[in-house]
Amino acid sequence: MSDVIILGAGPAGMTAALYCLRNGKSVTIFEKNAVGGQIAIAPRVENYPAIDSITGEELSDKMFQQILDKGVDFQFGEVDEIKKEGDHFVVATQEERFTARSVIIAVGVKRRTLNIEGEEELVGHGISYCAICDGPFYKDEEVVLVGDANSALQYALLLASYCKKVKMVTMFDHFFGDDALIKQVKANPKIEVIHDYKTVGFEGEKELEAVNFVNAAGDKLRIATRALFVAIGQVSSNTAFADMVDLDKGGFIIADDDMKTKTEGLFVCGDCRAKTVRQVTTACGDGAIAATSACKYLDK
Amino acid sequence: MSDVIILGAGPAGMTAALYCLRNGKSVTIFEKNAVGGQIAIAPRVENYPAIDSITGEELSDKMFQQILDKGVDFQFGEVDEIKKEGDHFVVATQEERFTARSVIIAVGVKRRTLNIEGEEELVGHGISYCAICDGPFYKDEEVVLVGDANSALQYALLLASYCKKVKMVTMFDHFFGDDALIKQVKANPKIEVIHDYKTVGFEGEKELEAVNFVNAAGDKLRIATRALFVAIGQVSSNTAFADMVDLDKGGFIIADDDMKTKTEGLFVCGDCRAKTVRQVTTACGDGAIAATSACKYLDK
Repeated sequence: MSDVIILGAGPAGMTAALYCLRNGKSVTIFEKNAVGGQIAIAPRVENYPAIDSITGEELSDKMFQQILDKGVDFQFGEVDEIKKEGDHFVVATQEERFTARSVIIAVGVKRRTLNIEGEEELVGHGISYCAICDGPFYKDEEVVLVGDANSALQYALLLASYCKKVKMVTMFDHFFGDDALIKQVKANPKIEVIHDYKTVGFEGEKELEAVNFVNAAGDKLRIATRALFVAIGQVSSNTAFADMVDLDKGGFIIADDDMKTKTEGLFVCGDCRAKTVRQVTTACGDGAIAATSACKYLDK
Repeated sequence: MSDVIILGAGPAGMTAALYCLRNGKSVTIFEKNAVGGQIAIAPRVENYPAIDSITGEELSDKMFQQILDKGVDFQFGEVDEIKKEGDHFVVATQEERFTARSVIIAVGVKRRTLNIEGEEELVGHGISYCAICDGPFYKDEEVVLVGDANSALQYALLLASYCKKVKMVTMFDHFFGDDALIKQVKANPKIEVIHDYKTVGFEGEKELEAVNFVNAAGDKLRIATRALFVAIGQVSSNTAFADMVDLDKGGFIIADDDMKTKTEGLFVCGDCRAKTVRQVTTACGDGAIAATSACKYLDK
């Protein structure tokens, strides 16, 4: 039986592990994909305080080494279910059952992708799902943005504040966002809105060179650009925990300021939590808080 | 006129600056003491994700260099007053007036000290005000803790979870904390409570060797130890902003999840905010959120 089981070895989960381990707790951490989560695929991270510039992979590796050195038990696999039995938790993967006195959920989110050939290869080479993270790399350039709703509208305004031009392509003939945001986007001379075009392909071998679109009438549109931002939503994957926690309408886990869920001994941190800003620093901050709460709970 | 004025160049303020600068905003940051704030005096930081071990000074310097490189305007000085005039803010030091379209308060807290000769010299050399940060350096050792209230009680339980013994010395003949915590402390065989003794002096030139106490009857007590944790409260210093923000009963600034205060365009982050966990990572997380909110406000 571990003191703490952490689900997800992204920045949130790894920070939670670091804090729990330093406080003498035994920690088992599960990861179903790659250590680091979404940040692992970022080619360049320049908004992590005290580290000037680093690849996402290297940043993840450093965090992982730090918790390995402190004795974390790493398990590669996907957790299908959490149950509380008496005063402890049972965590089940397809192969095995693990027990712990407390659990921290840090499974992150998936960005929704366009699901087009070549997209995966160009992520980090011109295609990005985070304008806050990667927009500044394209300062004073012309960029393309795909998306119809609030996060896309916010990205458009953000990118327009330092890029030369933002070509915003929507999949339908109107926006699905707040009126105030739509007005600002329409009024911004640096944003050109192109409604009702579907993304169909990319040009560029190693780096993005152009994006191809087509509308319902079959009209083709080709935009040459080094940068495409895709803001078509994030997919939460918290349904396995729905019995133990409250989810908001987007499926994100609701917690209080101390990262406590409605189940005693069960905490949450990072992108899978209901919140506004999803960045590496905010994930780490969440992780420290969740761990502090879990340690307090365990020391009772 | 700056886009953003940030008060305080600790991890919270510097992270906020980093995010605002990357988003193309002009930033002026004020610091009245040393860059880095409280973390600058930590001899060893081992709970910052991705950096295995670093001095607090070096960590602060790296954060500072990062924002200098991105063009932050640094001002050494104390801000006495913030006023909102129309749609902008006026920030006044004793010598000068500065204007900005938005302000982020990140002035941190002061730990209350014992105010005894030799204390300042031994901070980071045996005397610590943060058990979460520095407790793990004294794993399996006997440590001393001074304090009477909830944070001291929580530190006692935390330290007892991995230290060999915790000698907890209180200044009065009883605790001033929650019953539940007091019960746990009293029931913990690793915690020895010594009531009603006042700290009067330290032994040790470069590293702490012993702490001396005396009670009302004049009885002397000397405890040999390498580690003294002082948990006698934190002092907020937000009174200068009381007209513009809501303060809790401890004088900490109340903000929502997006770090917004009650004044539009005025944000808060880090230790000076009303919250439970005050760590470098949580300060950085706060800073990223406050900056994101400030940029959204400015882009409107």
